[in-house]
Amino acid sequence: MLNVGIDIGGTKIAGGIVDPDGTIVDRRRVPTPADPHALADAVAAMVDDLVTDRVVHAVGVAAAGFIDASRSVILHAPNIDWTDEPLRDELERRIGRPVTLENDANAAGWGEFRFGAGRDVRDMVMITLGTGVGGAAIIDGELLVGGNGIGGELGHIRFERGGRPCGCGQNGCLEQYASGRALQREAADIAASGALGAGLAAARTADGIVPAAAMERLIADSDAGALEAVHRVATALGEACGGFQAVLDPALFVIGGGVADLGERLLHPVREAYATALPGYGERPVASFAIATLGNDAGLIGVADLAGGRV
Amino acid sequence: MLNVGIDIGGTKIAGGIVDPDGTIVDRRRVPTPADPHALADAVAAMVDDLVTDRVVHAVGVAAAGFIDASRSVILHAPNIDWTDEPLRDELERRIGRPVTLENDANAAGWGEFRFGAGRDVRDMVMITLGTGVGGAAIIDGELLVGGNGIGGELGHIRFERGGRPCGCGQNGCLEQYASGRALQREAADIAASGALGAGLAAARTADGIVPAAAMERLIADSDAGALEAVHRVATALGEACGGFQAVLDPALFVIGGGVADLGERLLHPVREAYATALPGYGERPVASFAIATLGNDAGLIGVADLAGGRV
Amino acid sequence: MLNVGIDIGGTKIAGGIVDPDGTIVDRRRVPTPADPHALADAVAAMVDDLVTDRVVHAVGVAAAGFIDASRSVILHAPNIDWTDEPLRDELERRIGRPVTLENDANAAGWGEFRFGAGRDVRDMVMITLGTGVGGAAIIDGELLVGGNGIGGELGHIRFERGGRPCGCGQNGCLEQYASGRALQREAADIAASGALGAGLAAARTADGIVPAAAMERLIADSDAGALEAVHRVATALGEACGGFQAVLDPALFVIGGGVADLGERLLHPVREAYATALPGYGERPVASFAIATLGNDAGLIGVADLAGGRV
Amino acid sequence: MLNVGIDIGGTKIAGGIVDPDGTIVDRRRVPTPADPHALADAVAAMVDDLVTDRVVHAVGVAAAGFIDASRSVILHAPNIDWTDEPLRDELERRIGRPVTLENDANAAGWGEFRFGAGRDVRDMVMITLGTGVGGAAIIDGELLVGGNGIGGELGHIRFERGGRPCGCGQNGCLEQYASGRALQREAADIAASGALGAGLAAARTADGIVPAAAMERLIADSDAGALEAVHRVATALGEACGGFQAVLDPALFVIGGGVADLGERLLHPVREAYATALPGYGERPVASFAIATLGNDAGLIGVADLAGGRV
Repeated sequence: MLNVGIDIGGTKIAGGIVDPDGTIVDRRRVPTPADPHALADAVAAMVDDLVTDRVVHAVGVAAAGFIDASRSVILHAPNIDWTDEPLRDELERRIGRPVTLENDANAAGWGEFRFGAGRDVRDMVMITLGTGVGGAAIIDGELLVGGNGIGGELGHIRFERGGRPCGCGQNGCLEQYASGRALQREAADIAASGALGAGLAAARTADGIVPAAAMERLIADSDAGALEAVHRVATALGEACGGFQAVLDPALFVIGGGVADLGERLLHPVREAYATALPGYGERPVASFAIATLGNDAGLIGVADLAGGRV
Repeated sequence: MLNVGIDIGGTKIAGGIVDPDGTIVDRRRVPTPADPHALADAVAAMVDDLVTDRVVHAVGVAAAGFIDASRSVILHAPNIDWTDEPLRDELERRIGRPVTLENDANAAGWGEFRFGAGRDVRDMVMITLGTGVGGAAIIDGELLVGGNGIGGELGHIRFERGGRPCGCGQNGCLEQYASGRALQREAADIAASGALGAGLAAARTADGIVPAAAMERLIADSDAGALEAVHRVATALGEACGGFQAVLDPALFVIGGGVADLGERLLHPVREAYATALPGYGERPVASFAIATLGNDAGLIGVADLAGGRV
Repeated sequence: MLNVGIDIGGTKIAGGIVDPDGTIVDRRRVPTPADPHALADAVAAMVDDLVTDRVVHAVGVAAAGFIDASRSVILHAPNIDWTDEPLRDELERRIGRPVTLENDANAAGWGEFRFGAGRDVRDMVMITLGTGVGGAAIIDGELLVGGNGIGGELGHIRFERGGRPCGCGQNGCLEQYASGRALQREAADIAASGALGAGLAAARTADGIVPAAAMERLIADSDAGALEAVHRVATALGEACGGFQAVLDPALFVIGGGVADLGERLLHPVREAYATALPGYGERPVASFAIATLGNDAGLIGVADLAGGRV
Repeated sequence: MLNVGIDIGGTKIAGGIVDPDGTIVDRRRVPTPADPHALADAVAAMVDDLVTDRVVHAVGVAAAGFIDASRSVILHAPNIDWTDEPLRDELERRIGRPVTLENDANAAGWGEFRFGAGRDVRDMVMITLGTGVGGAAIIDGELLVGGNGIGGELGHIRFERGGRPCGCGQNGCLEQYASGRALQREAADIAASGALGAGLAAARTADGIVPAAAMERLIADSDAGALEAVHRVATALGEACGGFQAVLDPALFVIGGGVADLGERLLHPVREAYATALPGYGERPVASFAIATLGNDAGLIGVADLAGGRV
C-alpha cells in the first residue's frame, strides 16, 4: 500500500513514495515552474518517475491556498496564478490515477498527527511557523476540513483589532505577529530602537534585515535583543493558542516550520503567554506543547496518507 | 425511542420527553435549588415524573460549565457550587437509567443542528447570545467536543487585546462585547454620552439601566441611540465570526438567545462586520447567517437527542 | 453499562444482570407460565426484581421461535401459544425500558462468540444440541440475522432426502439425526437390535427409553452400544458441518447443549465425518471444533449483550 | 471513479472498464492461455489496453477456485494449474495498481446485488447454473466471504447422502443434480428409459448427448421428456433453496447462468420444490425468486465494484 505524496512549495516541488508507516522510501525534488501548466506537467512527470514498477494506490498533492470541499479545485492560491483551477481533474488526466488535493498546512498537520509529534493524541492543533503561518486542526481523529474546505486557517484569526495589515486583505492577523517574517520585523524594530537592540543593530545588513544565520547566532549567544524578538513572537503565539484552546480544545499543540527550530527557547514563553490567555485557567485541563518531528517532510507524508485513505 | 432532556439553568430546571423528531411530547419546569444535592434530587424527581409508564431510552442533562471528556464530571460550573462533581454517576444512581451530561450551549447547538435552523447543513456554528455568550461547533455532522471535553467556548476568545475584564479570569473576551449584558453596557454608555443617546437616557432607570422592554420599544421606534448599541454588539459578533470562519469554516452561523429576537436588525450589521474580518474575502465561499428556531427548548431537545444517540 | 438478559425456556425463565465482560452479577429463575400474558407478567416482574437500584441500559429477551427482522414480533414459537405476537412492545410497556428480542439459539451463539469458546475468531458457527438442535452463525463479527429475521436455523437443513419426519413440517431434518432426542432414538434402535446393544437393552425402562443417567454411565464404561449411538449422532453432525463449511466457511464450530457434555468423545467422530463431507478437503483450510464454555448461561449472556449494543 | 473488472473463465478472459453505475464503458476479450504465467501476462496486457489515458482506481479479477481470506492467493483452482498461487501480488507487480481477487461466483452475486436483479434487497442468494454451480450469499448488504475466504460454495452442499460422485472429492453434491451438466444427464437418462423420452431419444447424437440447441427446441415445444428433465433439475434446486433459506434466510434468490435462460419454466417448479423443503413453511415469510439480469457480465461488473470499494 504505497502512495505518492507531492508537496508544491513556492520555490520547489518535493515528492516521495510513502509506505503505510509514513516512511518515505524514495524521493524527488525539482524547482517550481511559474506557469500553471508547466507545473502540472512537472507534477505528472515526478509521479511517473517515482512510481516506475511499484504498486501505488493513490497520489496526494499538497499546495498553499484555498481548496474546495470536494478536494478537487484550487479556489485561490497565493504563490501560483490559480483561480478556480480544477487541478485534481487535470492531474488525474495526466497521471491516470486517483489524485487528492489538500492544503499544505492541513497536510503537514495530518502527517504529524499520524506519524509524528501527535501520534498519541486524538485532538491536536498544528501551527507551522514559516515565512507565514499555516494551521491545521485534528478533531477526534479527523482532519477539520470545513464546510467549504477551507478550515484551519489559523494564521488569519485577528490577533489585534486595528492591527498590522495582512496580505489576506484583513488587518491584525496572527501571521503578522507570529511567523518567520514577524520575527524579522520584531528584530528590525528592536535594532532600530537602540538600547537592548545593539547586537541586532550590528548584525543588520544594508537593507535593514537581520539575516537568519545571524539571528540564530545571536539567540544562541543569549543576546538580549534577539531574545526579546523571540519573546514577542512567542507571546503572540501563546495568546493565540489560548483562543484556539477555547474553540477547539486540543490535547496538544504541535509547532512546526523554521521558527520551531528554536525548540524550548520558543515553547517556554509560548506556554507562559498561553496561561495568560486561556479562559478558566486553573479550573480546566490544559494542553501540552511539542515541536514537530517530521520537519519539511510532514506535508508530503501527510498528503500521501490522506490520499491513500480516501480512495 | 423517547428520551428525556433536562436543561439546568441558573433559575429554573426545564425537562421534557423528546421523540425522535425532536418534538417535546411532555414537559415540566421547577425552580433551580441552590444546594447541589437538592438539585440532583430535583432532576431525579422530574425524570420520574416525566417517564411514568413510557418506554424511555436515555436521559440527557445540559448545564452551564466545563464537563470532562467522559461526559460524566462537572469540572467547574459558573452558577452551581460544583467542582469536579461526578454528576452523571450521582444522577444514574438516583434515576437507574443511563445519563449523558453536556454543556448547555453545546446541547443547544446540537438541537438546532438536528431539528432547527441548521438541519440542512453539515458544518455549523451556533452562538447563543443570552446574558453571556454560549458557543457550539458542528464539524462534518459531529459535535465538536474537544480533547478535554471543553471545546466550542466561543464566547471567550479574545476579541480585544488588553480589553474589558471577564468573569473567566481573562480580558477582552467576546462575551464582554457581544451579549445581552454587553448590549446593556453599550446602551448605558451611549445614554451617558448625550447626543444620540437622548432616547436611551430618558429610558434609564434610577440605577442607570435601560430595561429590556424599553430597549425593545426604542429599537422598534428606530431610536438612533438604541440602534447604535445594537450596531456595536453586531459589529463585535460579526468580526468574531470572521475569525470562527477562518478556524472552523462553517456553512452556516446560527444566532440564538434573547438578543437574537432582534432578527434581521441584528443579522444585517453582523454580516457587514463579518465581511470586514474574513481573511481572503472575495476569493472564497462565505457562510450564511440565520436566527435559531427552537428558542429556549434547543438545549433540552439537543441533550435528549445526544443521550439517545450515545447509549 | 449493565444489561438484563432473560432466557425464556420451555420449563423455566432464567434472568440475570450482565456486565460488559459477560459476567452475570445477579440472577433469578422461575417456572415458565403456560399463558402468554402470565409469561409477559413474569418477565416484567423478573426485570423489576433484578434492576432494583442498578443503572441498567437495556433488556434482552431470548426465546425459541421465529422472530421478525425488526426483533419485535414472535412470528411463531414452538413452546408458547404465540403467533405474530408483538412481544417487544408488550414487554416495553410493562418494563419501561428498551427491549430486544432474539432467537434463543442465536443469543447463545452470540454469547459464545463474545465471551466464550469463540472469542478469538471472527467467523463462527454454533450448534446447540439439546432436545432439538439450535443454530447460530457469526459472519465477520456480526450475527447472521437474515432478511426475514430467521436465519441460522441449522437444525432444519435436510440431512437425508425422504428421511425421518420432523416437527417443522419437513422430513430428513438434521435435528432428527443429531440432537439429544436423536441420541435416545439411536440408543433405543441399537438396544432393540440385540448384539452390541445388550448394555443399552439392560438399561431400558419399561417404556423403552434409555434414561440419560444410564446413558452417561454406559458411555463412561465404553459400552459398545452406547458408543455406537454417539457415533451415529456425531457422524450426522460432522457431515452437516461439512455442508455448513461450504456455505458459511467458519473458522470455528462451537458445539453446545446437553449432548456437548460428551466432550472429545463427541468431537472426535464429528471431525472424522466432517472430513468425509467437506468439498475440496485437502485443498483448503479446515475449521476447528470446540465445546461451548458458557453452558446454559450462553443465551442469557448473549441476549443481554445484543440488547446493550442495539439501543 | 472507474475500475477495471477482469473475469478469467475456462476458455476466455473478459475484461471491462466499469463506471460507478455498473455500466461497462469499454470491453475486451481474449482466449485463456493454459500456462499460468502467460495468463498473468494476458491479464496485465488487457488492463493496460483498457486503461489507456483513463483515471482508473482499482482492478478486480474474478476466477473460479478457492481464494484466501486476504483476497490475494489462489489456494486451488479447477481450471488453471494454480496451487497457493500469490496471483494478486504477481498481477500488482505487472499492472502497478491495486488488484483484488474474488471467486467468480461471488463476483457475479455481488454484481447482481449491486446493479442487477438484487438491487432492492439487503439479503440475497445467487445461484449460477452453468456447466457446474456457483453460489454467492449477500448478508445484510455485505458479501459473505468466510473465515478462510471460501464461503458461499453453494453447489457443493450434500444434496443426497451416498449420492453421485462429484469432482470436489465428495458425493451427492448439489452440482450433480442441478446444473447444466445435470440437465444433460437427466435428459440422457430419460431418453434411455423410452416412454416419455422419445423426443429426447430422437435428438440424441451418436455419443448419447442431447445438444443444447435441440434441448431448447424440445422445451419450447413442451416435449414431455425435456420438461421432465427440467423438472428434475428444478426440484433439486428448489429443495436446496429450502435449506439455504433455513441457514441464510435471504429475501431473494437470483438464478443465473445458461440454465436460467429457461426463465419461468425453471422458476415455477423451483418454487414448488422450495415449499416442500422449507422448515416451518406457512408460519414464516418466504423468499422471492428472480432470473439474473446482467448475464455473463455479472462477474466482471461485480469484481470491478468490489475492487473499487476495497482500496
